[in-house]
Amino acid sequence: VQVGEIGEQGLLKRLKAFCPADVVGDDAAVLALLPGRSLVVTTDMLVENIHFSDRTTAPEDIGWRATAANLSDLAAMGAEPLGLTLALGVPATTEVAWLERLYQGMTDCLYQYGTVLVGGDICRSSVVTLSITACGQVQPERVILRSTAQPGDQIVVTGVHGASRAGLELLLHPDWGQELAPSDRLTLIQAHQRPQPRLDVISLLRHQPHFPRIAGMDSSDGLADAVIQICQASGVGARVWRDRIPLPAAFSELIRLVPTFTAEQALAWALYGGEDFELVLCLKASAAQELIGQLGQGAAIVGEIIAEPGINVVDAGVETPLTMNQAFQHFA
Amino acid sequence: VQVGEIGEQGLLKRLKAFCPADVVGDDAAVLALLPGRSLVVTTDMLVENIHFSDRTTAPEDIGWRATAANLSDLAAMGAEPLGLTLALGVPATTEVAWLERLYQGMTDCLYQYGTVLVGGDICRSSVVTLSITACGQVQPERVILRSTAQPGDQIVVTGVHGASRAGLELLLHPDWGQELAPSDRLTLIQAHQRPQPRLDVISLLRHQPHFPRIAGMDSSDGLADAVIQICQASGVGARVWRDRIPLPAAFSELIRLVPTFTAEQALAWALYGGEDFELVLCLKASAAQELIGQLGQGAAIVGEIIAEPGINVVDAGVETPLTMNQAFQHFA
Repeated sequence: VQVGEIGEQGLLKRLKAFCPADVVGDDAAVLALLPGRSLVVTTDMLVENIHFSDRTTAPEDIGWRATAANLSDLAAMGAEPLGLTLALGVPATTEVAWLERLYQGMTDCLYQYGTVLVGGDICRSSVVTLSITACGQVQPERVILRSTAQPGDQIVVTGVHGASRAGLELLLHPDWGQELAPSDRLTLIQAHQRPQPRLDVISLLRHQPHFPRIAGMDSSDGLADAVIQICQASGVGARVWRDRIPLPAAFSELIRLVPTFTAEQALAWALYGGEDFELVLCLKASAAQELIGQLGQGAAIVGEIIAEPGINVVDAGVETPLTMNQAFQHFA
Repeated sequence: VQVGEIGEQGLLKRLKAFCPADVVGDDAAVLALLPGRSLVVTTDMLVENIHFSDRTTAPEDIGWRATAANLSDLAAMGAEPLGLTLALGVPATTEVAWLERLYQGMTDCLYQYGTVLVGGDICRSSVVTLSITACGQVQPERVILRSTAQPGDQIVVTGVHGASRAGLELLLHPDWGQELAPSDRLTLIQAHQRPQPRLDVISLLRHQPHFPRIAGMDSSDGLADAVIQICQASGVGARVWRDRIPLPAAFSELIRLVPTFTAEQALAWALYGGEDFELVLCLKASAAQELIGQLGQGAAIVGEIIAEPGINVVDAGVETPLTMNQAFQHFA
């Protein structure tokens, strides 16, 4: 069944099943914040054949990934989710079943993080277009900003980098890395198809009586991008220790098994691959140590903030300037 | 200059001028609510050549109208605005000046209602696509819902209906109604190009010590649609008095001057024209009288809620069932 056959009202009826009954039916949704919280709001637009392709990605995964990216933006601000809205543009020839699978992926991700779809809009378009807005809440004194990093801060990453990029490679080139153990393959593919926004880190921080000063953002556009953005916004520089960047466990296997996959390639994917949706946080040394102790596996201190501008990667005592990845200059 | 020539970063830099400096630059915007308020969130998607056309509408007016529609959804819920986000999809060939004029129209409308653009997203698309999300705040006990109308309630409209539809006719057919006084023409055209969401009504209600129970919504899809939606959601019926529906002052002139413009046509535009962005509110008789006294010109009691299902228009004692306008079945 195509969208054009059941009409807007018919489609709305089918898709309302994915929203809690008490938040739909009016011109807007009403959501209660906890006392003393500020609202955090972020929005993203995804267009078919530019941000996702029906041919390479299942609709459930498109929905999950789009949702995860927005939840990650909330985590990046230190916020906990209140709900998401989805505005959807679709051609009349779109299969209703495809849309239901998209919504299923979205709500699966939302469910895992204890939140829901609270509303939206559906309209006709020549190309499938998703526009997601995520609302969250945060105590104003616990907002995480990019602009508050200070010299001496340690740079913490909450998990491994490069896994999503490796998963994409496995999906695009099924021959690549086929010597890898099936469980390792699956882990990398899952990192790409079902990324996990680090709202668990925010929840952990919320329960700490003494909240440390934290600057940071998420690594959705890559670890290098995150460090660069934080340094630019804070007017500081940074030193990143190459050998401390946590890589997926499978990377050492890949280096052993795939002749073209070098340590340099592994580093490039970790720095520039993007879509790992970890958090990159800058804290005083003592608070950074405490945090990685609490986070456990994958979390690490990968560098330090310095007063002098410029960001260098330190490898066996040699410092090399970190360069910006140009891949997200979408119109260039 | 086209979007493709300055790239995403260049475009972002130009468009950031329309956002307050303190809310951009992070993964999300942080907004403070007043104590005891709930969040109200609503979203809309608009696609070029479906919801607006560059050939018939100036970009400033596209921006104003899209903004006004979302602010009207907040007013419909009894909420006051906190801010808007805009996610924008544009082809690389889009003129940057056109986008700046679009943003100017948006921010002009936001400024008039004391609110701002708090963030957004820009991406490439094959068709110009706007997705607006409006956030507002309301005391939970003062939320206006569609579902709480009760038999005996009077139906209040906050202003005239049919003006936007008449303004559209004047724009589409410049020969039509040319005998009309220039000031009357301008009033109708302005009603279409620069609709005024009724946040002033919400502000007025907020300052009343005793808030009456109010059911309602806005008349963005037409007065008839609003009455039908409220009755369906509340499980009631209604009687609407034809001669009490406030029409634009110019309509009597149009009936006199334009042979094809009959009283029936005027009524049809008032009931089904849409986009007048007034509020349709159901209150007890005493509260309704008080409200229209406060609102003054254009506001009127146009009907009453009854227990029996069905909605009738009463004209000289004769009751005729009100039918649903099918025009917003976008995919049909």
